[in-house]
Amino acid sequence: MRSPPWFDKDEQHEPQTKAGLHPLEVMIKAKVAAMLEKKKLLGDGQADQGKFVLKTAKGTRDYGPKSMAVRESVLKIVTDAFKRHGAETIDTPVFELRDVLMGKYGEEGGKLVYDLQDQGGELLSLRYDLTVPFARYLAMNKISNIKRYHIAKVYRRDQPVMTRGRYREFYQCDFDIAGQYDLMIPEAECLKIVDEVLSKLEIGEFYVKLNHRYILEGMFAACGAGSDQFKTVCSSIDKLDKQPWNEVEEELIKEKGLSKDNTEKLGRFVRLREFNPSMGNVELLDKLMEFEELARNERFKKGIEELKVLVNYCTLFGVRSIRFDPSLARGLDYYTGAIYEAVVPKALEGVNLEANGEEQKGLPVGVGSVAAGGRYDELVGNFIGPTGPKGKEKRQDVPCVGVSFGIERLFAIMEAKMQIEQMQVRTTETQVFIASAQKNLLQERMKLCGQLWDEGFKVEMAYKANPKLLTQLQYCEDRLIPLVLIVGERELQEGVVKLRNVKTREEQDVPLTELVSTIRSVLALI
Amino acid sequence: MRSPPWFDKDEQHEPQTKAGLHPLEVMIKAKVAAMLEKKKLLGDGQADQGKFVLKTAKGTRDYGPKSMAVRESVLKIVTDAFKRHGAETIDTPVFELRDVLMGKYGEEGGKLVYDLQDQGGELLSLRYDLTVPFARYLAMNKISNIKRYHIAKVYRRDQPVMTRGRYREFYQCDFDIAGQYDLMIPEAECLKIVDEVLSKLEIGEFYVKLNHRYILEGMFAACGAGSDQFKTVCSSIDKLDKQPWNEVEEELIKEKGLSKDNTEKLGRFVRLREFNPSMGNVELLDKLMEFEELARNERFKKGIEELKVLVNYCTLFGVRSIRFDPSLARGLDYYTGAIYEAVVPKALEGVNLEANGEEQKGLPVGVGSVAAGGRYDELVGNFIGPTGPKGKEKRQDVPCVGVSFGIERLFAIMEAKMQIEQMQVRTTETQVFIASAQKNLLQERMKLCGQLWDEGFKVEMAYKANPKLLTQLQYCEDRLIPLVLIVGERELQEGVVKLRNVKTREEQDVPLTELVSTIRSVLALI
Repeated sequence: MRSPPWFDKDEQHEPQTKAGLHPLEVMIKAKVAAMLEKKKLLGDGQADQGKFVLKTAKGTRDYGPKSMAVRESVLKIVTDAFKRHGAETIDTPVFELRDVLMGKYGEEGGKLVYDLQDQGGELLSLRYDLTVPFARYLAMNKISNIKRYHIAKVYRRDQPVMTRGRYREFYQCDFDIAGQYDLMIPEAECLKIVDEVLSKLEIGEFYVKLNHRYILEGMFAACGAGSDQFKTVCSSIDKLDKQPWNEVEEELIKEKGLSKDNTEKLGRFVRLREFNPSMGNVELLDKLMEFEELARNERFKKGIEELKVLVNYCTLFGVRSIRFDPSLARGLDYYTGAIYEAVVPKALEGVNLEANGEEQKGLPVGVGSVAAGGRYDELVGNFIGPTGPKGKEKRQDVPCVGVSFGIERLFAIMEAKMQIEQMQVRTTETQVFIASAQKNLLQERMKLCGQLWDEGFKVEMAYKANPKLLTQLQYCEDRLIPLVLIVGERELQEGVVKLRNVKTREEQDVPLTELVSTIRSVLALI
Repeated sequence: MRSPPWFDKDEQHEPQTKAGLHPLEVMIKAKVAAMLEKKKLLGDGQADQGKFVLKTAKGTRDYGPKSMAVRESVLKIVTDAFKRHGAETIDTPVFELRDVLMGKYGEEGGKLVYDLQDQGGELLSLRYDLTVPFARYLAMNKISNIKRYHIAKVYRRDQPVMTRGRYREFYQCDFDIAGQYDLMIPEAECLKIVDEVLSKLEIGEFYVKLNHRYILEGMFAACGAGSDQFKTVCSSIDKLDKQPWNEVEEELIKEKGLSKDNTEKLGRFVRLREFNPSMGNVELLDKLMEFEELARNERFKKGIEELKVLVNYCTLFGVRSIRFDPSLARGLDYYTGAIYEAVVPKALEGVNLEANGEEQKGLPVGVGSVAAGGRYDELVGNFIGPTGPKGKEKRQDVPCVGVSFGIERLFAIMEAKMQIEQMQVRTTETQVFIASAQKNLLQERMKLCGQLWDEGFKVEMAYKANPKLLTQLQYCEDRLIPLVLIVGERELQEGVVKLRNVKTREEQDVPLTELVSTIRSVLALI
């Protein structure tokens, strides 16, 4: 029940958590906190005007046009990959009945769910991920097979670290395959998608860690940690990508009650990849099987064999980025088979992402997963429950496997990349700007604008009756608009307009009758 | 403070609203209500298994692949129009500080805001529209001009009417122009966009009602309703598209305190379009100016003149759908100038949209606005407040005008249209399916799949080791996949695969070396 060490004080002011305080003390503390909160909301010295500091909610941010342009380019690469693999898309509401989410995210996760206020009617909470709503959707609509993607925002009352792309509101991009299929074929497709997306984003070296729940269970069991300790040992092992082994070992001994003998044994298992960084996947799987106490565990053996099949399928699909790693222990409890996590070890190195200083805390940038997933065969069945007239029949499971992209981190990496490469970002797609050289030409500009919009061109004009020509041309240069049509009195009398190429500054008179075809052919060449 | 007549009983169980009840009675009633609520959540006769009825939150729904395909096609038309007009896009969080939203939506609107539970930290609410967050964004980032669109979901604890596309969670598609510009040019562009979008959607006849706050104020003032009564008289007049005049008149007399003389006069003003359905806009504006008591009001006169300018600009842009209508009285208080609302009078006629029966209530389908907007010059300034060292300088206003599409209603109309026209909807974009004719060809299929994905083709295959050929071909026909590659032993020995056109059922052997170019050229012809 420990709160994470980074938990805010103001997040913990619920009276019931403050043991040993008199109820009155609790009340007074709460009142003082409320007053301080109110004071914080009032502007500097402007309390008399009832003005408050304008901000977005903690852990959230606005996305301006430039950020949005980058985000849309990243999302397009992801969506294109999903579509290339024949996925359909669905959408579910941003909030679910609280009962649907309850108990799905473990103790720590459950605390981070945003609840809606009880305003009469149902008790609701904001979705924490897209997987549980997906499982609810399948169970509710009795869908037993689908390949779908879902791109939407999810919500976690986590401690935000804006500089590392960790927000309380963030996008998830999920691809899942539900259905009773043959072993490891859908898993291989998920890994192929990860490989395609991360390659196309060109964010540098990446690899995909691979493991299996049965392998984790087998290793833990051989070290005296039974299935009741599975979750808690996982959560320690999961820290190995951020903490050295001796710290994790200490936690396993002091907090999880493992003996030193057993942690030493466990270390030999889970650190096998660390000790053999360049070993082939099949070789490493075989090496783990050499430990007798593991090899005699049938479930463990099954895990090893399944991953061997998966490794082979990945090779057939042309996926070369996977790396079996027995230390991969994803936190979520619902995984039942293969699990995987993609990391970009060197991304963002040396980049200062609008750093707020205090939030960096010396963590090496770039460490962290950008995609993760696995098989979860029982989540949907949990929603359906036993069927049949007396509820005693076998539960109807819908086996699922999927992957979720940590798209916010990918956005951050892309923004940094564009910063380094000094790439110019266009925030609009305007092709033609309609300008005027003299006064009193508003009506002519409007008429031309209307005609070109109707022809399908992307067109802008100034919202002023008499704008200055230079201001108009400057706008086009700033916005990277390729073409300007300049309307002038002389030209109108001659039945022409001037077409200017913003980059080359070349100008030509174009007869109004040939305007549409000329613009079309000029644009085709740009 | 009246609740709307359709308000649910379970929405009103807050004890404080039940006057005259003993606190204990209130408590008991609440407990009983809670128990009934709990009972409702339990499945039929399955209470013993702790199972609950799987559903989405009241007033929300899932969107399956077919609905999503229709929605994406509608959204594309809208986004394309926004981009054609040079708009950038932004995004804001789904929740805002409660203080940001408070007092922006009037009494009725304010009651419909979803609040988040106080879990420590800031008090938050879900956004009710995209306009207030936009104004907050401008004020917070000191942006004084931008042309942006924002497509996102908003939340209202309204009484849902699913059959008419009214949900508690729904998309808004907003286009707004912020900045100090010349009279009515941005308004004309907003109306041009409405005209373009509704034309391209091909949902039948539509027109855009047009009015001006100054005209409404002038008419009301001439009938004894001063500015303090503006809102309340507006809300009565606003009902004229659903209720006959005599009912509205009765409400004005009985509830708003107008005299019979004044309501008769007001009726002559606001029903001018009703009495002159086919009169030109300028003619109708002039006709309203013939009433002496209106014409001597300078503000009213300004409203008339501004709309005449707008009508002229619309003509220049080629917009023929606008219709000045003095009875248009949009509810929101923040409008300061021109207002407009697009209606599709005959859409959906005779269509039964997955009717739940009870919710239809005999309302004629198709009545209702599909886009609306107007000028709001003071909303942003409200957030900024007075500036200067003593807060006594003139307030910095950022004038804005915009339009919001009622996209859910457009989705509903499009779904109905596709139903009527029996159009087939593709939910995927798969181009090629890789099938096998015999057993034991999984590895060959996977290799081919991987190669074609890498070439950028949209490809699927069965997730079975040994699928039946007929099942595979049937899948392609169901999913409208145009091409199938059939891998067979004989063909592999000869270095070819069979390419089958699903529609014509023609087959040809293609050498593996020419596969990519052949598929590309065949797809180009389909």
